[in-house]
Amino acid sequence: MQIRHPYHMFLGDAADQLAAKTAHGIVHWRRDWCLGQLRLPDCHADLGLPEMSISDAAAAGVRTLVIGVANRGGVVGENWISTILAALEAGMDIASGLHTRVADIPVVRDAAQAHGQQIFDVRHPDRSFEVGTGARRAGKRLLAVGTDCSVGKMYTALAIEKELTSRGVNCDFRATGQTGIFIAGEGVSVDAVVSDFISGATEWLAPENAPDHWDIVEGQGSLFHPSYAGVTMGLVHGAQPDALVLCHEPTRTHMRGLPHQPLPDIATCIEGHLNAAHLTNPGARCIGIAVNTSAMESEQTRKELLKRLAVAHGMPAVDPVLDGVAPLVDALEAI
Amino acid sequence: MQIRHPYHMFLGDAADQLAAKTAHGIVHWRRDWCLGQLRLPDCHADLGLPEMSISDAAAAGVRTLVIGVANRGGVVGENWISTILAALEAGMDIASGLHTRVADIPVVRDAAQAHGQQIFDVRHPDRSFEVGTGARRAGKRLLAVGTDCSVGKMYTALAIEKELTSRGVNCDFRATGQTGIFIAGEGVSVDAVVSDFISGATEWLAPENAPDHWDIVEGQGSLFHPSYAGVTMGLVHGAQPDALVLCHEPTRTHMRGLPHQPLPDIATCIEGHLNAAHLTNPGARCIGIAVNTSAMESEQTRKELLKRLAVAHGMPAVDPVLDGVAPLVDALEAI
Repeated sequence: MQIRHPYHMFLGDAADQLAAKTAHGIVHWRRDWCLGQLRLPDCHADLGLPEMSISDAAAAGVRTLVIGVANRGGVVGENWISTILAALEAGMDIASGLHTRVADIPVVRDAAQAHGQQIFDVRHPDRSFEVGTGARRAGKRLLAVGTDCSVGKMYTALAIEKELTSRGVNCDFRATGQTGIFIAGEGVSVDAVVSDFISGATEWLAPENAPDHWDIVEGQGSLFHPSYAGVTMGLVHGAQPDALVLCHEPTRTHMRGLPHQPLPDIATCIEGHLNAAHLTNPGARCIGIAVNTSAMESEQTRKELLKRLAVAHGMPAVDPVLDGVAPLVDALEAI
Repeated sequence: MQIRHPYHMFLGDAADQLAAKTAHGIVHWRRDWCLGQLRLPDCHADLGLPEMSISDAAAAGVRTLVIGVANRGGVVGENWISTILAALEAGMDIASGLHTRVADIPVVRDAAQAHGQQIFDVRHPDRSFEVGTGARRAGKRLLAVGTDCSVGKMYTALAIEKELTSRGVNCDFRATGQTGIFIAGEGVSVDAVVSDFISGATEWLAPENAPDHWDIVEGQGSLFHPSYAGVTMGLVHGAQPDALVLCHEPTRTHMRGLPHQPLPDIATCIEGHLNAAHLTNPGARCIGIAVNTSAMESEQTRKELLKRLAVAHGMPAVDPVLDGVAPLVDALEAI
C-alpha cells in the first residue's frame, strides 16, 4: 500500500468542519501534497484549498482522490458515487478513510478494475502479517503513548519527525491510524488487525533499519483505556521503542467515551507503559511529556502545569502546538 | 453459536496423537458427549472411542461431526470431503477447529445449505462485537492467566469449573480458544477477533450474571509474551476478574516459540496481571498458582517447588492434574 500523491480532497456533503477532521489533518501536515478540494452542494466543511473539478484536478496532475470525511454511519454517500467514478475514469486512485470499504461497492470496484486504478481503504489492512517475535532489531524507534485516546499522539509524532528532519536526522513517521496513513502515504490501521497479529503488524511497520535511523511510531489508545488497551499493548511490544513520549490532555475528567472510568495519574501511566516496553526493549525510557493545553484557561496556568510536570517527572514537558517539540527532540538526541 | 452434542469425532488421517490434541481434550472433558470416532486409513491417532460410520453415528443420535484434528497447513484434506458430505446428508452439523474455514469450501457450503445443517468454524468468530466499556457488571469472574502460552490455563479453568459444580456453586466455563469452544459448545476465539474488539468480545462472552454466579474464563497467552500480550490485555480488561489464577510450567527455559525471550519471574508476572486487572476491577486478587509439574524429575522436587511457591507468594500452589484444584477453589470461595 503506497498512496500516490498529489491528492485531491473530496469533502462530499460534510455536515461541519469536524466531519472533515481527517482531511484537515492531511492538509495541515502535507499541504504541498493537496492540490485542491471538491465539495458537493450542502457541504459545510472547507479546507481553504482551491476548488477543483475532477477534470481540473486530473489536468493538474492529481494521482489520488482522498475521501477524508466522515458520513453518517461511516458509509459512502449515494450522491458521492458519480464523483468517485469520474475520478477513476480520469486516472486517479481512490483512498478512503471510511469504516465501510469503498472497494466493496460493485460499481466502484468494477470501474477501478476497468481503468486500472487502485482503491485504498486505509482502515482495512490490505495484507496479512506474521505473529510478532519481539526479537531485537537494529534502528531506533520512538513511540507516542498516552493517558487516554485522542490526546495528541499523532500530532506529537509528526512534530517530532519534522523537527528531527530539520536537524538532518534520518527518520520516518510510521502511521498506525487512518489520518496518519494518508499523511505518510502508507501504514497499518493496527486497531483493524486481527488481535493475534498486533505486535507482528507493528514489527512489519517499523522494521530493522540503520543504527542511527529513527522510526517515529504513531501511538493508539492507552494501556489505561479499557476499550483499547490490547491494541496499545501489541503496539508497545511490536514497536520495541527506545523512547516513549507520554501525551496528555489535562482537562479530561474521565477516559474518552467512558464516564465511569477515571484517568490514570501521570507517574502510573509512564511506569505502566515503560514496564510493557521493557519486555522487548529493556533500555526503553520515557523522554518527555507532550501536553495538549489548548483547553486551559490562561497562559499562566498552562505554563505552571508544564513546569510542574517537568519537575515532578524529571523530563521536558511541552505543548507541541504552542511550544514546539525542540526540548523533546533534544532529549531524544541525547540517547 | 451453540454446537449441538452428542459429537462424532472425525480424526481423518491424523499423523500422530499430537495431531488430534484438540479431539483428546474434548474427550477428556466431555466424554459423555462423544459417541464415537471415525478414522480414515493411515490414521495414527486413537481416542479410544467406539469406531462408528456416519450412518451408525446418525442412528445413535449424533448431532455434530467434530473435526478436532490438525492437518498440514490447517486445511481440510481432499480425502475428508466425502465423509463431511455424508455427515451433512445424515443430518449432522459440522464443527471444525482448522485454520481455514470449512464453510469456504463451495461443495461443503452448498451441501450444508441443501440439508439445512450448520457449519461452525470455531477459530473464526461468527458475529461482530461492540467496543468494550469496562463498566462494572454483576456476577463474579475468575480468569486463568499464565507465565507463558500453553501452561495449562484451559485445563486449570475446566478443573475449577468441575470442582465448583461438585460443590453446588452456580458457574460456567467461558471458552476463548478452539478446544475450549468444543468443550463448552460455545465461546469466542479471542485471538481471531479484530483488535479493537478484544475486551468487548470478552465482555460479551462473560456477561452480567447473578451476584453469586462464577464465570470461569479460559485465558490466552501472557502479558509477558511479545507475540500475544495484546490479546491477553484485552482479555484481562474484558473479563473484569475478581480472581486470577496464575498458571506456570517450571521447566521452560524461554517463552514458547521465542528462544531469545526469557520467562518472567512469578512475582513480576502476578503483579503485572493484577495491575492490568485492577483497571476494570480494583478488587481483583490472585488466589493461587497452578503448576504443570509433569516434566519434573521426581515427586520430591515437585512437592518442594509447590511448597516454596505457596510460601513465597502466600497462596495455594498445586498441580491441577496431580493434586486437584480443591485448594484453589477453597481460596475462591473465601472471596
